[in-house]
Amino acid sequence: MSPAIHSGGLRNKFSIMPKNKSSKIVVIGGGTGVFTVLSGLRKYPVNLSAIVSVADDGGSTGVLREEFGILPPGDVRRTMVALARSDDRLLSDLFSYRFSEGGLRGHTFGNIMLTALERITGSFEDAVYEAGRILGVSGQVLPVTFANVRLCAKLENGTVIKGEKNIDIPQHDGNLKIKKIFLEPKASINPRAAKAIHEADLVVIGPGDLYTSLVPNLVVSGLVSALKKTKAKKVYVANIMTKWGETNGFNAVDFIDAVERYVGKNVLDYAIINTKRPSADRIRLYEKESAKFVEQGNIPHKPTAVLGDFVRARGFVRHDPDRLAKVLVSLL
Amino acid sequence: MSPAIHSGGLRNKFSIMPKNKSSKIVVIGGGTGVFTVLSGLRKYPVNLSAIVSVADDGGSTGVLREEFGILPPGDVRRTMVALARSDDRLLSDLFSYRFSEGGLRGHTFGNIMLTALERITGSFEDAVYEAGRILGVSGQVLPVTFANVRLCAKLENGTVIKGEKNIDIPQHDGNLKIKKIFLEPKASINPRAAKAIHEADLVVIGPGDLYTSLVPNLVVSGLVSALKKTKAKKVYVANIMTKWGETNGFNAVDFIDAVERYVGKNVLDYAIINTKRPSADRIRLYEKESAKFVEQGNIPHKPTAVLGDFVRARGFVRHDPDRLAKVLVSLL
Repeated sequence: MSPAIHSGGLRNKFSIMPKNKSSKIVVIGGGTGVFTVLSGLRKYPVNLSAIVSVADDGGSTGVLREEFGILPPGDVRRTMVALARSDDRLLSDLFSYRFSEGGLRGHTFGNIMLTALERITGSFEDAVYEAGRILGVSGQVLPVTFANVRLCAKLENGTVIKGEKNIDIPQHDGNLKIKKIFLEPKASINPRAAKAIHEADLVVIGPGDLYTSLVPNLVVSGLVSALKKTKAKKVYVANIMTKWGETNGFNAVDFIDAVERYVGKNVLDYAIINTKRPSADRIRLYEKESAKFVEQGNIPHKPTAVLGDFVRARGFVRHDPDRLAKVLVSLL
Repeated sequence: MSPAIHSGGLRNKFSIMPKNKSSKIVVIGGGTGVFTVLSGLRKYPVNLSAIVSVADDGGSTGVLREEFGILPPGDVRRTMVALARSDDRLLSDLFSYRFSEGGLRGHTFGNIMLTALERITGSFEDAVYEAGRILGVSGQVLPVTFANVRLCAKLENGTVIKGEKNIDIPQHDGNLKIKKIFLEPKASINPRAAKAIHEADLVVIGPGDLYTSLVPNLVVSGLVSALKKTKAKKVYVANIMTKWGETNGFNAVDFIDAVERYVGKNVLDYAIINTKRPSADRIRLYEKESAKFVEQGNIPHKPTAVLGDFVRARGFVRHDPDRLAKVLVSLL
């Protein structure tokens, strides 16, 4: 099944190449979702910026954050690898390399590099810039804020969970719905991120863990107002699988509704929704983490739904970078 | 005092530029001495190779060596910084950066990078090559051997000290002379190091800690025979200061004699000897480590002695990279 516009007048008018070589695309997210979107889009002659969350506090990132007081490098690192020069595979392998022995165990090389660069240059912003230069990153990687924030979730029973890792791998009853996500303390948007949104032709939100990768960006003060002001088309890419403790039982419409609770109604122009159900075998692998296939739901008139088969052919049930990029570029 | 040849017919015939643009210079050593020689020579249009010791087992290098079983990256790292592209100061600052906090404390970034690259590529040789490529190193950095060796010293009283760090910062009575240096187990020369010596126009040995930086190279099987076979001119650069527990009371002739005990008589063509005594204030700083100024001694007819003021103008009493390079290049 090839992608088809559900409503609006663009049906089957997908063009493969962007109309304008200097088209600017901003991708907002975190985790592996941003990686997927960028690794597809980088094959097109577009100008890419990635706005990534800095609310991560687990693993290597969490240790470095605690010991060095730096911003969490995890999402920045993953994003850089997606944008690193493709002719130097070793450099991105190195940046992603995770030590498994001795005192360095659990740390990724990229996190260590960002930490050293932060200490040498004196700022996380400069560290990200310099790491990008060394890796030959095409495009900019923009931490959504430079504030040292903690992600908090208020559950439907009133409990407040603090720390991204405690939300990500729920320490609470995963059946309880997340009512609200907020940052402690409040944080203002990185001005370069605001500028990138302002100048963009297309802004892509997601895919990714709703409350631990996407919303941590959306709750940064100044981000939503930038989204409302820009002339860019705004696209939300709904997830293919639910996530236990975050989006149990969500269909695509629930995902759209949740994002709209943060960005506002009538802000999103498009929602990309996968309609291809992967094989039962592939879905079964997700049973142990209580993740389920995201059904379409009762799709609203707005945002314009773009339906199609976006699942990669094998392996993890995630978006196929090339199929996703093709449809995103067609929206330019 | 400008450099003057003590014997032989080359007096005052120093030319500033090498005659041949593709002249090949091989520098053998370890520690800061190699750094000094290379950072001076790199300003000339010569082809540089550095053969460095892998007997180091102290500090960050020692920890990584123990935890990862890799060859010690310390001297390789320092040498790479000396040869890194000069237009990217940050990259060499990064490579030399030493963490002072948390679980990474004491590690240098460069050592961590060489360790990760060793794990990714599967060999220390490839790791050194790839690190050199990333840093834009001009010239080759060649570990003297790929054998995992331990440096041992036999003292005049028969005691054997094992481990470079135990010799470097003497755990023994520093008054006892070192009678013999050897490796455990025996090691064969890196074939590319032998090739570099074979093809060289000039081979520079030193300056550097005699028994912990220079001799650890000379005792690698195949190195001395390569030195004897090559048509290159062989130059030894004598130290400016003695080192407690290694070279107490040595004059320049003692240094030359010690090197000749390993490489053989009539192998060295030149010995570069500093004759400029630094100010009493500067020398006084070395009293606490019982290091003394190296006197000239009764200079023999061979190797040809090149005498001059080679001390840097301020700071550590070490060779001035530019003065040293100028005289080395003139010997081509």
